[in-house]
Amino acid sequence: MESSLYDTLKTTALGAQRAAQLLGQLTTATKDRALRAMAKALRTSQSEILEANTADLELGRQMGLSESLLDRLKLTPQRLEGMAQSLEQIAALKDPVGEIVSGWQHPDGMEIKRVRVPLGVIGIIYEARPNVTCDAVGLCLKSGNSVLLKGGKEAEHSNQAISLVLQQAAYENGIPEHSIEQLPGDRAVVDVLIRLHPYLALVIPRGGQSLIDFVVKSATVPVLETGIGNCHIYLAASAPLEMARRIVLNAKVQRPSVCNAAEKLLVHRDVVVTHLEPILADLAESGVEVRGCPRTVTFDPQLKPATDDDWGKEYLDKIIAVRVVDSTREAIDWINRYGSRHSEAIVTANYEEAHRFVQAIDAAAVYINASTRFTDGGEFGFGAEIGISTQKLHARGPVGLSELTTSKYIVSGTGQIRS
Amino acid sequence: MESSLYDTLKTTALGAQRAAQLLGQLTTATKDRALRAMAKALRTSQSEILEANTADLELGRQMGLSESLLDRLKLTPQRLEGMAQSLEQIAALKDPVGEIVSGWQHPDGMEIKRVRVPLGVIGIIYEARPNVTCDAVGLCLKSGNSVLLKGGKEAEHSNQAISLVLQQAAYENGIPEHSIEQLPGDRAVVDVLIRLHPYLALVIPRGGQSLIDFVVKSATVPVLETGIGNCHIYLAASAPLEMARRIVLNAKVQRPSVCNAAEKLLVHRDVVVTHLEPILADLAESGVEVRGCPRTVTFDPQLKPATDDDWGKEYLDKIIAVRVVDSTREAIDWINRYGSRHSEAIVTANYEEAHRFVQAIDAAAVYINASTRFTDGGEFGFGAEIGISTQKLHARGPVGLSELTTSKYIVSGTGQIRS
Repeated sequence: MESSLYDTLKTTALGAQRAAQLLGQLTTATKDRALRAMAKALRTSQSEILEANTADLELGRQMGLSESLLDRLKLTPQRLEGMAQSLEQIAALKDPVGEIVSGWQHPDGMEIKRVRVPLGVIGIIYEARPNVTCDAVGLCLKSGNSVLLKGGKEAEHSNQAISLVLQQAAYENGIPEHSIEQLPGDRAVVDVLIRLHPYLALVIPRGGQSLIDFVVKSATVPVLETGIGNCHIYLAASAPLEMARRIVLNAKVQRPSVCNAAEKLLVHRDVVVTHLEPILADLAESGVEVRGCPRTVTFDPQLKPATDDDWGKEYLDKIIAVRVVDSTREAIDWINRYGSRHSEAIVTANYEEAHRFVQAIDAAAVYINASTRFTDGGEFGFGAEIGISTQKLHARGPVGLSELTTSKYIVSGTGQIRS
Repeated sequence: MESSLYDTLKTTALGAQRAAQLLGQLTTATKDRALRAMAKALRTSQSEILEANTADLELGRQMGLSESLLDRLKLTPQRLEGMAQSLEQIAALKDPVGEIVSGWQHPDGMEIKRVRVPLGVIGIIYEARPNVTCDAVGLCLKSGNSVLLKGGKEAEHSNQAISLVLQQAAYENGIPEHSIEQLPGDRAVVDVLIRLHPYLALVIPRGGQSLIDFVVKSATVPVLETGIGNCHIYLAASAPLEMARRIVLNAKVQRPSVCNAAEKLLVHRDVVVTHLEPILADLAESGVEVRGCPRTVTFDPQLKPATDDDWGKEYLDKIIAVRVVDSTREAIDWINRYGSRHSEAIVTANYEEAHRFVQAIDAAAVYINASTRFTDGGEFGFGAEIGISTQKLHARGPVGLSELTTSKYIVSGTGQIRS
């Protein structure tokens, strides 16, 4: 049974690979036309998609899914319009394929240039939100890659309906067939998909820590790890109070459910007395639960004590753990030990300290006097992203279209040989 | 026993990780001074190293190693001098760490810059040649990374002696202790090393196909695949004869044992009569064994027929397989099917065909009218390389100092929050 699933998926991957060879050579104009046609098709197929989504929601209710999960699953005309607009935005982005990244002349006269080319076939493993189907297809197609989509079982009808609409519009507009493949939602598919070396160029798991850990440990295909954010704000001894309040509040409450939200606050002991009280008041007012280290709890005995378990955790909720530190050195060591290498911030008025912090912190994005919430493809000017990479290889930080490509060297000579 | 080896290696990796945090922040001047001191130490410790090498050679002879393996293992004063010079060359290269790769201003006024930083701890798995010990240490240190070296059992005395000399000189000159660790030569170490996620940032296997395949399939640590080169030269219908002869001969015989040497020759049917005879004569004169496809063998019935097994093979020897093709399309499909995505060349006088070939071939380096032998860090101007990547993620083609780094975003603000 498992081997028959392997054979089926290998055949699918090989078809997608052949499609990718053609897709990689399409002009930008063809790809953009198809993306706009896909956006249009989403709008005209609204009722079929919403119907499929209703089936998922009903099944989900029967299976007792939580309200927040059902909300993530739910599509509305507004959400569909958002998906269509995001395809149009992707169409408007610069095509990374064909970009000459660098070029020079070899001493013997050959021209050497490094040119961006697509990766091939990309696998995306994701959970409830059906809009990921659409975003992933848009980003992969624009960057010249075929895509194998493995959505959640709970969103299977919605995902299949969206894919079908996108496939039809794409294939009618010059995109090679088999460039877009929606796989069954079963968990067993994941086990096989991540071992389809060398047919898949890359697999991107988008989901919780346990999915990502499993994929990293088990995949033979290269993995792009995205998304876990145990982000810290460190208030140094010289942190200006008003700036500290503004940044902590924004990083924690502006959108607590996302990976670049702050989960931890480190406070230098010199500013505990001045800064902690107003910040705790701000957080309480916004309904944030605070968990404190022993020194924080001494300062405010009302607070819930943080456990060892808290320091490495990503809450994705209105919760923050607060710790008092004795020095910037201690803050740096703490963050490098417990952080998830996503986004880390210092608030300080001291130049040397700011410099030392950004040098020493090991993370995709390090901030001086700004909210961690800016780590985002849109905010960084990449236009769209498929996630935030917290790994070091290939891509680190927001993963935009360029990060979905590789390069090749093209060497043009006139008969040169090596002596 | 295996779990105790895991614990030992994990401890070593953690030590190397701590060292890497310091190493990553050293100035270029400090690293270069240490590299030059290491070169000097290699020269003054010549006799100890050669003595250790003699022990390996004697054991190797007793174990019945082949003469070619013994030759790869053998160190001489000249080879040691070459190693010392290569450290000095690495010292002279531009430091990739700290390079601002790109930078811009966010609409809200923050400066965003992407800065090159070291990866952390790199594992290198290699076989007979002890000079790899020295090159790997040089490249890893210069790029700010700690290195765990796993050499071959057959070179263990030599590798340990070289490492000891390099460690002493490095640590006396400001490199943090534990930045360089030579692991035991036992094969069991490989199994553990490649699973040291997340303590190792990267593992680079340098060796034969079976080692690389094993590492790719089993590693939980990211892998950089290097080195397998089943490279083709395709002679198009318009290939100028003298250029074709020169390139084929150079790509095959100038150094047959390396990964960028040509292993296959594809000949368009229109030039079989004119080109094949002189080229076969050139190859025969250079002592190259030719294995032919049925049509090639029809042309010269003296030739050994190629088997199905030949087309995917990397000979690393004076052997070439020749195949007649009916079109450039067939040549492209053949190469994309059987090539190892390393270096592929077309010889042609036709502009459109050259363009089509470089667009469609999926390889790290694609050549028009030049020998595949140029795919090399030195030739590409990178100064030194740790191998040629045939994978698509992170690095493709010659892997120089830049490819041993990652980047982080540094965002400098004045209190910005996300609205």
